[in-house]
Amino acid sequence: MYAFRPGCHNRPIFILQLLINVQSADTVEGVWPLPQDFTSSMEQYPLNPHTFHFGYGKQSVAQRGCSVLDSAFKRYFSLVFPDYSSANDVLEFSKDKPFTAEISVDHDHCDDYPNEESSERYNLSVSERKAVLNAETVWGAVRGLETFSQLVYQDDSGSYFVNKTEIVDFPRFQFRGILLDTSRHFLPVQTILKTLDAMAYNKFNVFHWHIVDDPSFPYQSCTFPNLSSKGAFHPMTHIYTQSDVRRVISYARLRGIRVLPEFDSPGHTSSWGKGQSNLLTPCYRSGIPSGTFGPVNPALPSTYQFMARLFQEVSSVFPDSFIHLGGDEVDFSCWRSNPDIRTFMQKMGFGVDFAKLQAFYMESIVNITSALKKTSIVWQDVFDYHKRRSSLSVVEVWRAGCYLCEVRKVAKAGLRVILASPWYLDQPGPTHDWARYYTVWPLAFKGTDKQKKLVIGGEVCMWGEYVDATNLTPRLWPRASAAAERLWSDERRTSNVDQAFPRLQDFRCKLVRRGIQAEPLYIGHCKHEFQGV
Amino acid sequence: MYAFRPGCHNRPIFILQLLINVQSADTVEGVWPLPQDFTSSMEQYPLNPHTFHFGYGKQSVAQRGCSVLDSAFKRYFSLVFPDYSSANDVLEFSKDKPFTAEISVDHDHCDDYPNEESSERYNLSVSERKAVLNAETVWGAVRGLETFSQLVYQDDSGSYFVNKTEIVDFPRFQFRGILLDTSRHFLPVQTILKTLDAMAYNKFNVFHWHIVDDPSFPYQSCTFPNLSSKGAFHPMTHIYTQSDVRRVISYARLRGIRVLPEFDSPGHTSSWGKGQSNLLTPCYRSGIPSGTFGPVNPALPSTYQFMARLFQEVSSVFPDSFIHLGGDEVDFSCWRSNPDIRTFMQKMGFGVDFAKLQAFYMESIVNITSALKKTSIVWQDVFDYHKRRSSLSVVEVWRAGCYLCEVRKVAKAGLRVILASPWYLDQPGPTHDWARYYTVWPLAFKGTDKQKKLVIGGEVCMWGEYVDATNLTPRLWPRASAAAERLWSDERRTSNVDQAFPRLQDFRCKLVRRGIQAEPLYIGHCKHEFQGV
Repeated sequence: MYAFRPGCHNRPIFILQLLINVQSADTVEGVWPLPQDFTSSMEQYPLNPHTFHFGYGKQSVAQRGCSVLDSAFKRYFSLVFPDYSSANDVLEFSKDKPFTAEISVDHDHCDDYPNEESSERYNLSVSERKAVLNAETVWGAVRGLETFSQLVYQDDSGSYFVNKTEIVDFPRFQFRGILLDTSRHFLPVQTILKTLDAMAYNKFNVFHWHIVDDPSFPYQSCTFPNLSSKGAFHPMTHIYTQSDVRRVISYARLRGIRVLPEFDSPGHTSSWGKGQSNLLTPCYRSGIPSGTFGPVNPALPSTYQFMARLFQEVSSVFPDSFIHLGGDEVDFSCWRSNPDIRTFMQKMGFGVDFAKLQAFYMESIVNITSALKKTSIVWQDVFDYHKRRSSLSVVEVWRAGCYLCEVRKVAKAGLRVILASPWYLDQPGPTHDWARYYTVWPLAFKGTDKQKKLVIGGEVCMWGEYVDATNLTPRLWPRASAAAERLWSDERRTSNVDQAFPRLQDFRCKLVRRGIQAEPLYIGHCKHEFQGV
Repeated sequence: MYAFRPGCHNRPIFILQLLINVQSADTVEGVWPLPQDFTSSMEQYPLNPHTFHFGYGKQSVAQRGCSVLDSAFKRYFSLVFPDYSSANDVLEFSKDKPFTAEISVDHDHCDDYPNEESSERYNLSVSERKAVLNAETVWGAVRGLETFSQLVYQDDSGSYFVNKTEIVDFPRFQFRGILLDTSRHFLPVQTILKTLDAMAYNKFNVFHWHIVDDPSFPYQSCTFPNLSSKGAFHPMTHIYTQSDVRRVISYARLRGIRVLPEFDSPGHTSSWGKGQSNLLTPCYRSGIPSGTFGPVNPALPSTYQFMARLFQEVSSVFPDSFIHLGGDEVDFSCWRSNPDIRTFMQKMGFGVDFAKLQAFYMESIVNITSALKKTSIVWQDVFDYHKRRSSLSVVEVWRAGCYLCEVRKVAKAGLRVILASPWYLDQPGPTHDWARYYTVWPLAFKGTDKQKKLVIGGEVCMWGEYVDATNLTPRLWPRASAAAERLWSDERRTSNVDQAFPRLQDFRCKLVRRGIQAEPLYIGHCKHEFQGV
């Protein structure tokens, strides 16, 4: 029978007994990714949320009203004092604040977008009653604020502390990206914004938006509205409107993150065909059209007119100077089956070499984007079959196997390289895989310093076959954090997995505390477990 | 420079264009797990949340005031009409309701707990303006309400419909469990309750609470408070108080779910030793105590006095008639190293056969729980080394390899069997693994009908090495749903993976709509994507 059971009567006394057993104060656990030069002592300074103050240094070129830093001060106040509901007077200047974090920058980029040249270097000095953060740019200042927020910790009574610290920091690689695939599954804007938050905590600085692909075309184009109205999973609930895209771009900007759009062609374009007739190649079976379609049709002038107009829109909507043109995994069988394509190839003198046809197509698209003053990135396939490589600028290496052989080839050809192969995190695996993603050495190939400088960075790819808003975050974090440290920190000081483990465990708990659903590395607990179910 | 970009000006007209392209009404996608006997026609009946009514049938033994059904009516009203904030008058009887769902049960178990004999059988008949649900027990009625809620669907205008349907349904296996491990990681109570919701949607009926283990002892015992105050990850934030446990039990009860506690011994008990001295075996190295401890010490009378008091409390706190005693993976090396243990074994005539010692220990614990009128479950290890098997009653098969060989052995010995081996879902993997969990045939062994009847069911195990509240749900669902159908439905009608796939895809979207973070099976979309980030 269902009957009330008394439970513990000695509860109040019991709680007193417990108090005795509570562990005492945490100590500072460091910063992830590891700063280039980091010295801290056990000298502790208390922080009081009521009197703590973020302020602009007198010599700072940027001052109050700088959108990037004003909003960063607000954001990081809540991150530094999670138990304290963000004070409104956080920006208000006042002499008697006993602890001031003073931020100064050399240049006013407050209304710019971060770009491939943006310096993220910063110096941070924490001493009694004062933290001094100097950076060349607001983007460096944002990185420094992230570092400062990770230095602050709480004891068991909830009091906040920061230790005496000196940091000189800058990224090892200038391109540190995360790819999200919003075509195989639609990701709500909220999910993208949440990922941008986590990226900022990890000092990632490029959001590679693989926005369209075969399964769906969620980008709502002004020029070609049918692409999403016919090609999206749903024309109204599963699309990114212009204002959605603007929201993502400005949210990323405030965090020093570039938004790199990818419109992959000529393959991976099935969904494009639904809203744009005569764009894809009709496939033939035994001499007649089979009703199915292949890659973009490179034989029609209308194709290039369409692409020119689409990329004109894209390059105005996305401010970044890079555009990703894809060019991967093109299946030649449909082109081969189509008589018009074969005629075109004869005319062009390609014979039966479809790689030449693809090279011709990609070169035309590259020229379109160059004319729009954009630097184009292509997947390694384009480099591999392309003879006149001079027209290419940045190549992303993604194939498994000896990826460093490929990196070396691209660098030897004098082109810039982004490395993705070792960081395909969409593949599920036990979290301890993190060590596999951590022990990657992007420059461990035979080459000159000049060639190694061409490796501009790396990227974590989260493809969407099995990933959507339900499982994206635990699959991405903290495994992507391993890549984050590899791409930011000094390799010699971050090559030991055993030394990294406790630091990453602590950082993962920080992510969880900040509401990021980062999965556990192994048995254990966080002081504040994830509650948001 | 950062500048506003106009975006689409033709938006309003555009939206009109879009409306034309919206897909039209969904049709009923069926029920997961598949009912035993299910016939439905395309004859559609509209449902209006304002006039829909759940009510008790006149001939029903249970009537208004039945806690299980009153709360189920409220719950399922919101699940049937997700866009409609639950009406207060949902239970109010009124002749003119145009659609009535009339529930009748033969027995009044309204204040009982579900148990191993509880019938979950129900009949559901949906016709014009009326659904009639008959069941022997309130637990069957709850299963039928779940089925009814899955029959209701919405068209694109948001109107609700249900099709003419006749269902006769009952579970194939009476024990359909999910194991959660709250020792390797602490799971907040909210996470457990959310899992109980998802279990009810999948018609699981046993929550196997692996509540303590080596890493931590979160169960707050009244009799031995030090077990959690010293053995939990944190004595106040990472424990289950008596009221937490009561809350879980009563939440589960209302959903027809039994709560089966496991207090695993003599191995997997490191955390017990922190709060209870002289319980674990001191290990010796080169003749002297090494300072480390092994399994529970089976040589001391105090051990059995402690266990008797602990299980007395446990059996009063947990109303279910089953208790899981564990008994798996006992490492003999520490026992072997300890001179007192070896002396005890000589005295008992065990020689150097430590399996005999373990059997002796387990038999004593089994006797303790039998005296408390509880049926004990043990992991297969106990069966494997135990000579006098007559004292055992239920064996859980968990080891990989030929698990059906083991099932057969246990059944031949006349003991009841629970199968867990093929459903270790804590191992991550691509969601399409679901097919592996679906194509499991628990009775595909040579044996008599009597022996096969001894296979009382199966269990999905979610061990906690790499799992906590951040990743539990997407790792568990919808992969556990594959096991749910295997354990509930007719095997002959649910053996085809290709036929199951679209049904499971649809059910997964239903879970997502209900706020369960169930990961996607493959490329595609749900009408309502998961929003809760």
